[in-house]
Amino acid sequence: MTKPHFNKISILGIGLIGASFALALKKNLLCPHIAGYGRKRDNLGRAKELGIIDSFAANPGEVCRDADLVMLATPVGSFSGLIGEISPYLKKGAIVTDAGSVKGKLVYEMEKMMPEGVYYVGAHPIAGSDRSGIDASHADLFLNARCIVTPTSHSGADALKKVASLWQAIGSKVIEMDPDKHDRIYAAVSHLPHLIAYALVNTVAEIDGEALGFSGQGFMDTTRIASSSHELWRDICLMNRENLIEMIALFQKNINILDSHLKASDSVSLEREFLKARTVRQGIGQD
Amino acid sequence: MTKPHFNKISILGIGLIGASFALALKKNLLCPHIAGYGRKRDNLGRAKELGIIDSFAANPGEVCRDADLVMLATPVGSFSGLIGEISPYLKKGAIVTDAGSVKGKLVYEMEKMMPEGVYYVGAHPIAGSDRSGIDASHADLFLNARCIVTPTSHSGADALKKVASLWQAIGSKVIEMDPDKHDRIYAAVSHLPHLIAYALVNTVAEIDGEALGFSGQGFMDTTRIASSSHELWRDICLMNRENLIEMIALFQKNINILDSHLKASDSVSLEREFLKARTVRQGIGQD
Repeated sequence: MTKPHFNKISILGIGLIGASFALALKKNLLCPHIAGYGRKRDNLGRAKELGIIDSFAANPGEVCRDADLVMLATPVGSFSGLIGEISPYLKKGAIVTDAGSVKGKLVYEMEKMMPEGVYYVGAHPIAGSDRSGIDASHADLFLNARCIVTPTSHSGADALKKVASLWQAIGSKVIEMDPDKHDRIYAAVSHLPHLIAYALVNTVAEIDGEALGFSGQGFMDTTRIASSSHELWRDICLMNRENLIEMIALFQKNINILDSHLKASDSVSLEREFLKARTVRQGIGQD
Repeated sequence: MTKPHFNKISILGIGLIGASFALALKKNLLCPHIAGYGRKRDNLGRAKELGIIDSFAANPGEVCRDADLVMLATPVGSFSGLIGEISPYLKKGAIVTDAGSVKGKLVYEMEKMMPEGVYYVGAHPIAGSDRSGIDASHADLFLNARCIVTPTSHSGADALKKVASLWQAIGSKVIEMDPDKHDRIYAAVSHLPHLIAYALVNTVAEIDGEALGFSGQGFMDTTRIASSSHELWRDICLMNRENLIEMIALFQKNINILDSHLKASDSVSLEREFLKARTVRQGIGQD
């Protein structure tokens, strides 16, 4: 694998993902100039002081001028607005990519917004955290993590190769997947669990303020992702709402099955459902 | 605090909890003779070889003969049957206790079954695991963990004191709580999350066998407890079914709130619900 090289990479959104991506690029000597944009001037200043980015500006377009690659690392709901702002500044041959948790229609929409000669390649590194912001960022966040890259017939073979080799160069395992398939799978294994975790915390908080103080490791594990950014997850859930609404209905059906076994005191059926889940869950490991 | 002393402690159920309790007793030199009973002869033999228990027998009554304290560490659904078997063998002044996740009505039922001069004191160490069996057991499982002790007007002051000081002697923080209050709180913070985790795994497995392979840390955390013993949790859920059915209804209401915001593409309300949960969850720590 040839190590890709970029003279300038611009990162829009200097949070956990954007800052960790910048640190990984620096650690692997993949780019001499990393420019950053974000809503908070203070955060950008700190990111520069900490050596995460080399320059920043108040205008996302300015930040993207002359960039070989632009990484969108803001909440997915902001992507189309940002593309509108940066488009006039993008040079021919530039690649725009992202690290968003939604692909599907969003990827097709982004592609349509690209100026001539600019390619869009969607990507989703499976390396989030309930923590957020540059204080949680680190150069190895993507090391050994999977990165789903979602090419379409418009991605451009060269652009796709460059994006894939960039993620490989920072230690990720790249998997290519159809954008719509991605959204269906991640609605199930990621977006639904987040929604459930938020609902579970709200349920327990509603019952009794005191109850939370008695929670054990099980509750802490089950609800850890409810600490995740509300803005990020609002956007993800809305952008993938059709799949997510379907998954919620399936989940509710499964909850209702357990609920009816409980109501009927049907010990055998309840145990059978628990064992089915246990066997599946043990099959995917302890981590 | 005076270290309690027992000449013989009998443990019924030599799984994760029973074996860890035995190891903790030995480590803290609290009892010279620990007798064990369980359904599987092989497991009992191994427990003796490993020095977890000092003796065992095929009859739970025999195991409890002359015991100063009997610990029920089997699934809660087996308690009343076991009490029936061991009652004729219990000596006057003996204490029966348990480590079950359900208290409430179960405690009152157990109390009624005690022979004259035998006291029942319910307890619930908050130290389970998705792992089970003696291979997962260790002497420090209860160290720094909370143990909820649930006295009633029939517990007997001396018996209560002995049970509480025993848990303290193995490093647990003892909290006294009304049995019914215990069941309401743990329906919310423990039994409901387990039921949700089982339902979530069954949902994702139903969608697409391939999907599970793409799960990240969030899914692993959220569903870790779905690896828990199906027998143990069948009993817990059935024994606390009234509270649990109420909690499921509250949870479904909270899921429906999120679902309706999604269906209405109501970004502001969705974010508000997520932020509410995030604030609560962050307030109880990272662990």
